[in-house]
Amino acid sequence: MLTVLELIGIAAFAASGALAAVRARLDVFGVIVLALTTALGGGIVRDILLGVRPPAALVTWPYLAVAAGTGLVVFQFHPTVAKLRRSVLLLDAIGLGLFVTAGTTTALHLGAPPYAACLVGMTTGIGGGALRDVLLREIPLVLRREIYAVAALGGAVIVALGHRLGLPAGPVTLVGAALIAGVRILALWRKWNAPVARKLDG
Amino acid sequence: MLTVLELIGIAAFAASGALAAVRARLDVFGVIVLALTTALGGGIVRDILLGVRPPAALVTWPYLAVAAGTGLVVFQFHPTVAKLRRSVLLLDAIGLGLFVTAGTTTALHLGAPPYAACLVGMTTGIGGGALRDVLLREIPLVLRREIYAVAALGGAVIVALGHRLGLPAGPVTLVGAALIAGVRILALWRKWNAPVARKLDG
Amino acid sequence: MLTVLELIGIAAFAASGALAAVRARLDVFGVIVLALTTALGGGIVRDILLGVRPPAALVTWPYLAVAAGTGLVVFQFHPTVAKLRRSVLLLDAIGLGLFVTAGTTTALHLGAPPYAACLVGMTTGIGGGALRDVLLREIPLVLRREIYAVAALGGAVIVALGHRLGLPAGPVTLVGAALIAGVRILALWRKWNAPVARKLDG
Repeated sequence: MLTVLELIGIAAFAASGALAAVRARLDVFGVIVLALTTALGGGIVRDILLGVRPPAALVTWPYLAVAAGTGLVVFQFHPTVAKLRRSVLLLDAIGLGLFVTAGTTTALHLGAPPYAACLVGMTTGIGGGALRDVLLREIPLVLRREIYAVAALGGAVIVALGHRLGLPAGPVTLVGAALIAGVRILALWRKWNAPVARKLDG
Repeated sequence: MLTVLELIGIAAFAASGALAAVRARLDVFGVIVLALTTALGGGIVRDILLGVRPPAALVTWPYLAVAAGTGLVVFQFHPTVAKLRRSVLLLDAIGLGLFVTAGTTTALHLGAPPYAACLVGMTTGIGGGALRDVLLREIPLVLRREIYAVAALGGAVIVALGHRLGLPAGPVTLVGAALIAGVRILALWRKWNAPVARKLDG
Repeated sequence: MLTVLELIGIAAFAASGALAAVRARLDVFGVIVLALTTALGGGIVRDILLGVRPPAALVTWPYLAVAAGTGLVVFQFHPTVAKLRRSVLLLDAIGLGLFVTAGTTTALHLGAPPYAACLVGMTTGIGGGALRDVLLREIPLVLRREIYAVAALGGAVIVALGHRLGLPAGPVTLVGAALIAGVRILALWRKWNAPVARKLDG
């Protein structure tokens, strides 16, 4: 069941990358590359940081097939997908929760200290979207808006605390992922944003 | 002989990076850094993904010397090099063919499954140019135009198929590289482009 | 004492990243992420290239605490920090010297050939700032201005030469770092810039 959720998260991330690529007028191969990068980039960066080689995302064909297939579907039917924007954002929130908690858990199992595992988990969840925005010449959305990074941090801390207290990993991961998804959905719904610094006069 | 071809490919990639850097008004060191990044970036990313450490490009001084030297020559004589743009594009096509097929072969030899080897090979060929464009604040050209990614994919698939069928690696690599270079040159000559999605109304 | 200098360098790099993020109107978490990326990105890239896993910057909590704390302080008091711009640039020059020489030394100790160690050292010093600029959609400053890359190269070459000649590492590192910091400060003070190519007519 976790695997099904993971594939849903990958599809949601791939759809967000592909939609952004269609908006930037990329060709069909560019759209697929953006779908792959957004969906799998975070996990690849995680595996590079942790020394897992080759990165799991590159050698797990269902991940690749779901991400590339989603890219192709979005390329073909993007006006419909754009109308489903709310659903994509909902799935993206679930994907974020799963990616962050899975990344944190993997790092803890490989012996990283808790604060490092939280950073790695956040990178897993945020890295793909940041790569998408850099490739499309945008300042990464995650750095600018809507309580994205802090939701990820909260869920990662819960997983690391649960690990420290010896709680069973499965339920703790689900609680962490649900917290992340819940905060993200609330932030989108209530238009919560993190504070921005006062304007510079200079 | 493969090594001579490799050095030609590196010089062509370095020239494309250096020309773009001159156009962006970078100083002489920026031009050399861009030449190095464009020529060696794809191979470095490949070695990071496959866990080859340190990356071959960093410890093979002829690669570094050719890339940096090309950057310096372009900085000094860039109006002439710009006039040779067609020749640079021709060499770039040959370089792409060699980089993609060499990357795919390396990945297969290190035990990666065929579809992963194809992705790694494409990344080897495309990564340097993508880094060049990101550093110069452009949306990577390879994602936007001229059948670049698909030519790379075609050649990588040929190498992976040949490996699967147990054909001798040398000739298969040459066929794959020739296909990539040929498709690229045809695409430039006939101005082939991959399809772009219909415009969004929103 | 070297550790204290290192933490000063990390704080200076973090301040430059956080100030740039405040200018780009990022939220508080974006400012902290930019502070972490600028301060620790170069070292993380170095460790990825050299195969040190997990990267030292991720598992050394004082580094993380100083970088994140600096980000928070800059977010809160950025008009004051902006007035201290000269001091930040001074500390940044010291940080550059320490990062480049430490990166070169680490690479030499892990058995990299001298020219590769110099490249890795330069990447350590320059990588964080380049990541900062790419994330904020700027062409990396280091490629454009003020004798940044060449100062780094000079210091790295001194460390590599000293290692080759069997000189004691400590003093050589200090000389290399002082040279880098000195050249950078002179370049800022006298407004030295590296040459730019003649303008293209096309």
